[in-house]
Amino acid sequence: MPVTYDDVVSAAERLCGVAAQTPVFTSRTLDGRLGAHVFFKAESFQRVGAFKFRGAYNTLSRLDDRARRNGVLTFSSGNHAQAVALAGRLLNIPTVIVMPFDAPAVKVEGTRGYGGEVVLYHRDETTREALGQRLAEERGLTVVHPYDHDHVIAGQGTVAKELIEEVGELDLLLAPVGGGGLLAGSALSARALSPRCRVIGVEPAAGDDAARSFRSGTIQTSLDPVTIADGARTPCIGERNFAIIRRDVSDIVTVEDGPLLPALRFLWERMKLVIEPTAALPVAALLEGIVSVRAGQRVGVILSGGNVDLAQMGDLFAHG
Amino acid sequence: MPVTYDDVVSAAERLCGVAAQTPVFTSRTLDGRLGAHVFFKAESFQRVGAFKFRGAYNTLSRLDDRARRNGVLTFSSGNHAQAVALAGRLLNIPTVIVMPFDAPAVKVEGTRGYGGEVVLYHRDETTREALGQRLAEERGLTVVHPYDHDHVIAGQGTVAKELIEEVGELDLLLAPVGGGGLLAGSALSARALSPRCRVIGVEPAAGDDAARSFRSGTIQTSLDPVTIADGARTPCIGERNFAIIRRDVSDIVTVEDGPLLPALRFLWERMKLVIEPTAALPVAALLEGIVSVRAGQRVGVILSGGNVDLAQMGDLFAHG
Repeated sequence: MPVTYDDVVSAAERLCGVAAQTPVFTSRTLDGRLGAHVFFKAESFQRVGAFKFRGAYNTLSRLDDRARRNGVLTFSSGNHAQAVALAGRLLNIPTVIVMPFDAPAVKVEGTRGYGGEVVLYHRDETTREALGQRLAEERGLTVVHPYDHDHVIAGQGTVAKELIEEVGELDLLLAPVGGGGLLAGSALSARALSPRCRVIGVEPAAGDDAARSFRSGTIQTSLDPVTIADGARTPCIGERNFAIIRRDVSDIVTVEDGPLLPALRFLWERMKLVIEPTAALPVAALLEGIVSVRAGQRVGVILSGGNVDLAQMGDLFAHG
Repeated sequence: MPVTYDDVVSAAERLCGVAAQTPVFTSRTLDGRLGAHVFFKAESFQRVGAFKFRGAYNTLSRLDDRARRNGVLTFSSGNHAQAVALAGRLLNIPTVIVMPFDAPAVKVEGTRGYGGEVVLYHRDETTREALGQRLAEERGLTVVHPYDHDHVIAGQGTVAKELIEEVGELDLLLAPVGGGGLLAGSALSARALSPRCRVIGVEPAAGDDAARSFRSGTIQTSLDPVTIADGARTPCIGERNFAIIRRDVSDIVTVEDGPLLPALRFLWERMKLVIEPTAALPVAALLEGIVSVRAGQRVGVILSGGNVDLAQMGDLFAHG
């Protein structure tokens, strides 16, 4: 049975008192420029610095006793890795995270810091799927997919649920799209709580597989896209995610890396928020007019996370 | 008659619906490390990106019709300049801001962007006081001192008022100290709303005039101190401020620039807040144990602002 808004409500109950209810920000400057009312849901203030904690915790909290004892495995070099590690620590579930050998040290250390066991692999020796499958079988681990998973989608749906419950119905809701967990979950909540709201996914132009999938009706792939929006470098959206996105999402648009920089600068310099490039995709789409907003409309924007290398970001701001 | 908590209450009424009620953040990591409960009042999210808007707006809103028509003048190359310019725009009061010729272009443009008239001066030709005095006399402008002013102190006191009203009584309240407007205002609110709370000012070691003034009982001076905490480079605290600080503040401590960097990194990287160096002074004092906190204590920290040059900050994070 496919995931529904009831599952989002159930996830919200699991997350109550565990996940942060993240703050909503507004900007008079942006509202003035667009002639609209924009509400930013800042998941940078979520535990582990990104919305991923919601889906990971919801998923791990629903494992049975045996699965909990044996532990879980996931593949991720990003926010999902730390999210699973922290959820495991809070629920006393062992976690194994498979990462490429050249993953940034800060991500590896961050994941270990939350108590995750990191297993590194060489891309030329094996795939993460093959290694993960072998480890999972050997050790009886449950594989937790980063996005193509009902409990993950339901968990991510709690972001839009909180936003709409706090600010009221929206005309438009924008979220970045990588694997489609956040976008699919957002669409479930928007359809239930704000039925006339258009939900739009925003993707980096270099990795436009979700946009192509949306238009063609079959899942398309982007291999190793080159973009600073590293959270949206996933090769393709998940099947479960795509089913929801086709039904409940109005459009998927793309943004070049160029316009991402002024969007990031706006978020950091004017709004004082440390935000990762992926999270700036919807803001760039608004600033560039890629998504058009009519006067007086109420727009929700999900700022998906804030995990960045500060020195790298400083360099980006200094030199473009 | 010296300024009292009643004036803070009156300022809060003026600011209602005009100034932002800024959010309060907590950090499980920091609380775990200190064994305490720390509440961060993030004035980086205030209008113009710093608490200074509160004092400036409160002051300008109390001018009589004639003074409003003639306009106001202030000296500042920092957050007070933009605060006065924006308050003037909102209240339809002309504003003149005297800045040194070599003030950062971003500050000059920011102030002009809010509608302020910027008058630049050469340090070797005149002092800002002499130039300001001349302009004020010629044009009938009212001089708005950045901190040594009752209405400014009362306005800045609304920060601590909001914080304590939101989170409850505190054992300790920390604020950076430059001219002493924020610290004096904080002390007024703390004494009224949380009488057993110790209020401590934190100052850069290179410009330790407030600490020396506090110990000696007479106002001391620091001339052009070299510190990244540029908001606390004021030569000395104000007389009105000092009278309140001597009576209601428990201590003033100093922090070297070295420990400011890890404090800033903590605020940006872990808490995802864009915060200026001056605002990190109290956090450095906590992390370094310069201010000692007992187990279970409730600690308020005022993050005074978030106006920085992103490229400069990136360089600082990359190279120390």
